[in-house]
This record gives sequence, C-alpha cells and structure tokens, in this order.
Amino acid sequence: MEERQSQVVLGLDPDLSALWPAASEPALGISAGASPAERAATAVAGHCRALIDATAQACVAAKLQLACFERLGAPGWSALQVVAEHARAHGLLVIADGKRGDIDVTARAYAQALFGGVETPFGALAGLGADMVTVNPLMGRDALEPFVSEARAAGAGVLVLVRTSNPGAADVEDLELAAGGSVWERLAGIAGELGAPGAGESGFSDVGAVLGATVPGHLARARELMGQATFLLPGVGAQGGRVEDLAPAFAPGRAGGLVTASRSIANAHHGTGEDPAEAARAEAERMRAATWALG
Amino acid sequence: MEERQSQVVLGLDPDLSALWPAASEPALGISAGASPAERAATAVAGHCRALIDATAQACVAAKLQLACFERLGAPGWSALQVVAEHARAHGLLVIADGKRGDIDVTARAYAQALFGGVETPFGALAGLGADMVTVNPLMGRDALEPFVSEARAAGAGVLVLVRTSNPGAADVEDLELAAGGSVWERLAGIAGELGAPGAGESGFSDVGAVLGATVPGHLARARELMGQATFLLPGVGAQGGRVEDLAPAFAPGRAGGLVTASRSIANAHHGTGEDPAEAARAEAERMRAATWALG
Repeated sequence: MEERQSQVVLGLDPDLSALWPAASEPALGISAGASPAERAATAVAGHCRALIDATAQACVAAKLQLACFERLGAPGWSALQVVAEHARAHGLLVIADGKRGDIDVTARAYAQALFGGVETPFGALAGLGADMVTVNPLMGRDALEPFVSEARAAGAGVLVLVRTSNPGAADVEDLELAAGGSVWERLAGIAGELGAPGAGESGFSDVGAVLGATVPGHLARARELMGQATFLLPGVGAQGGRVEDLAPAFAPGRAGGLVTASRSIANAHHGTGEDPAEAARAEAERMRAATWALG
Repeated sequence: MEERQSQVVLGLDPDLSALWPAASEPALGISAGASPAERAATAVAGHCRALIDATAQACVAAKLQLACFERLGAPGWSALQVVAEHARAHGLLVIADGKRGDIDVTARAYAQALFGGVETPFGALAGLGADMVTVNPLMGRDALEPFVSEARAAGAGVLVLVRTSNPGAADVEDLELAAGGSVWERLAGIAGELGAPGAGESGFSDVGAVLGATVPGHLARARELMGQATFLLPGVGAQGGRVEDLAPAFAPGRAGGLVTASRSIANAHHGTGEDPAEAARAEAERMRAATWALG
C-alpha cells in the first residue's frame, strides 16, 4: 500500500458482452478452430490483462470473481490462473472472490485449490496462490478454520463475509438476535476471534472481513468488533457507496480498508468515447487519490 | 425414485489418498508425460466412474463435491464434466454441491456454470447440466433468486443450506432471533417462499433444503416450514446420523428426502478385505432398503 499509495482493489468480473476491444479475437489471434469456451476464455483473459496493464499502478490488489471464470469451464479455470499470474507480475495482491464455505475436509479442499495447492500421490498440485480468499461463515467456526489454517501456512489471509453490500443482506445478516446484537455482529465476532492469533507486526490480522460500502453506518461498529481486521469494502460506484463515507474502516491505519471497484473502472469509457484503458486508468487514479486522502 | 426404489444419493468427494485400485494409473493407461494435475484428474474421474458403476442401481442421484475437483485445476473441471455425464448415463440425477452464494450478476454466473450454460458472442457455452445445486442463503433473497430462476428455466432445482450437519452449525444457524425462532428457521422460511411458485404436479417444489441428518430433531419443524421441499440429508454414516431417525423428512412422500452418503459407501471395503466395488454396492443397497422401508 505504501509503495503504491493505494488501497484500491481492481475487481475483475468480466462481462462477456462488454469486453474491451483489446480482447477482440483479431487482437488476440484466437484460432478459428477453438471451441466457444476456449475462445471466450482467451478473450476474458485478454480483457483482464488489459485492465491490469491500464490500472495496476493505481491499485494494490486484483479481485478475481471466480464465477465469471467458472462459467467458461476448464478453459476458464486456466484463464483464472493466467490472470492471477499477470496480476502478480504487476505487483498486485491476488484476491480470489469465491465466497466458499463448507465443512472440514471440503473446506480444506477449497483452501488448497485457492492457496498453496496439495501434495498427492501424483505429485504436488499447484493452487491458485491467492493472497486473500473470501469465505462464507454461515456454517460456523469449523467451516472457517481450515481456510484460516491454510492461509496462515501460506502467509495469506481470509476475508469473512460479515455484512454484504446487497439489499438482501437485510434478510439474514441484519436479523436481531435474542441475545442482543445482529447476525452480522456475531459473524464479526467469530471472525475477530479466529483472527486474533494471526495479527502480524503491522498490527493487522490475517482474518479480515467483507463489509459493504453501501451501508457505511455499520463500519464504526464493525471496527469495534474487529480492531485488527482489514475490511474489504465492495459497493463503491455502480452500487451506490461513496469513498468519503468509509473513514471508520481506516481508523487503525490505511491498511484497515481495501476499496474494491469493478464496473466503475472497467466501464468508465461507456458513453464518453474515450479509450477504455485511458478511462479506466483515470477512474482508478481518481479512486486511489480520494481514498488515500482519507488516511 | 420409483424406478430405482431408492432415495439414496451417492456422494462423490474423492480423497486423493484413498482412490480405488480401479483408478490406478496402469488400470487407466495414464500417460507418463501428463502433468500431476492431469494424472490426478484422470485418476479421480476413474475412481468416480467405478463408484457409479458399482452403486448406480441402488441410487437415485450422484452428488459431486466441487471442491474436490477444483483443487485439480483445469483438468479437474474437465473431470467434473466427465463424471456428471457418466452419472447421467447411468440414470442418476446430478447434484452439484458447491454451496455457492453471491449477489445478482455473480449468482447468475454461478448458476449458468452449473445449470444450462450461457449464450455469448463466442457461441453457446455449455453448463454442467446439473439437476440440483446447493446454495448458501447468508446473503439473502436476492442472492438466491438468480439460482432459482436459472433452475426453473432448466427444469432443475435448488437446495438451500438450512441447517447443516457440522458442529459449527450451532455458531450461526442455531442462533435464536429476537423476533422468535432461529436463524435456520428463517432460512427455511425464505426457501419455502421462493419455492412456492415452483411446486410441480408431484406436489414437490423446485426449491429444496439441506438439513443435516445429525440433528434429526429439527426435521419435523423444518417440514412445517417447507411442506413442499425435498430435503437433502447429509451426515448419515461417518458423521453419525441414522437413517431410522429421518422419517419426518418423508412425511409428504418418499420424494421428500434424499439421503446422501459418501465415505460410508466409497470406503465400505476398508478393513474388510472385500473388493471395493462389491463392498460399496452392498452398503448402497443396505441404505436403499433401510430408507425405502421408512416410506
């Protein structure tokens, strides 16, 4: 963050109907004999690489939306690896946004896939090598612990869904509990407990939280419950959240918050006639400066 | 179910250190030049095919644990497709157990990946073609609706996590709400509402629920809240649940419950010296008969 003076996360959730011209088939030299999935995956990887090339200097991480790669089948999984490698080569942390959650053995398998891989009788299988992974805490502590232990072993981190940015968050996450507080406050408490042993020299833990920027009123309370957590803050831009409202996230320091934006960067050129890369670079830089100024 | 007289779901969550001899490299003719991931994926697919061959006549569905394929990278995703196709060819419904959950556009991308695919500028991309998909409801109704609408369009179904089989379920799902009832009862209510428009001629809806067989005391209450739902019941066998305790799930008819078992079938030969396929077939048949007798 200090090096880039940035807390901005480039969200990569490529929309197949809005890829940049840099990802067009002639530009990439895609073989006419390739399958639709191979062609789509090559184009998606090209689009994401161009977005990274344009904006990396203003960003600190890239957040890969796994769903957008999975729907491309096996070629999509290969594209995911290519894009993660490209982000790393540009000095970005890699956040695998898969919101996984499952019991013990299965949670460990997901964590192996996304972090450091697994030793097998067939040799070592590489994982995605993510620096952070989003996880879903509905199933409780024993569903989170395998992610935390795999992350800790890999020098990586976990981002627990606590209070998401969508309207439906009110349906479950905001429910008030008989014992006091809300479901999301309980989730924050669990994440805070799991993260306590993982606080590093920076003062920040390896267990962070996802907190929607669309309801910034929750941030101060979340900060009370998770003093050492890095907050991933989606919902700025297209979903209506404003950078200016996020100050409580940064109370313990600039590393307290990661502001993520996807469509507002990738589609910054829509309706302007500008070059997509130039428009994306300008929007990422605008967000970088606005967020850094809060610290 | 009527044809097979079975409510048993074969769980496929292959453990790389406990694959059947039928999945050994000489048996499958795996190329020595293949990568570790390709070799592991070929072996996993071989193991799953052998399990399906051995048990399909006693089962009604196969449940594919996506994590176990994802950790094999792109070759794992190809293996997932091969195993789903093999299950279908043996007359089994395919349940994609990925416990996905995310907001609007992303949820739709996951649903496209697992159900019917997506039309793109590069041509139609095939989905996994699952008959049912497990989903995580933490993020609320708007995170579930895209799965329900894609499922309904594909003639498929959704299984919402309501009360899972792991000890950690007590941490969040069992919390009591200030307005009365528990978190899991609220989840059951949401799933019941989403499923109401999808009830078919059978009387069963296209929105079911995952309810752990380890806490059968919840089943009668869940049935009150979701009268038309099919319940997927994990946790029998290795996790301690007993088929005999599941009768409330079947109150509206035999299609009210799907009993899933993974390790108790795949590892039935452990310590017996029996042939894995014979032991698995016998265990699946034992479960089939015990469950059918409840109806």
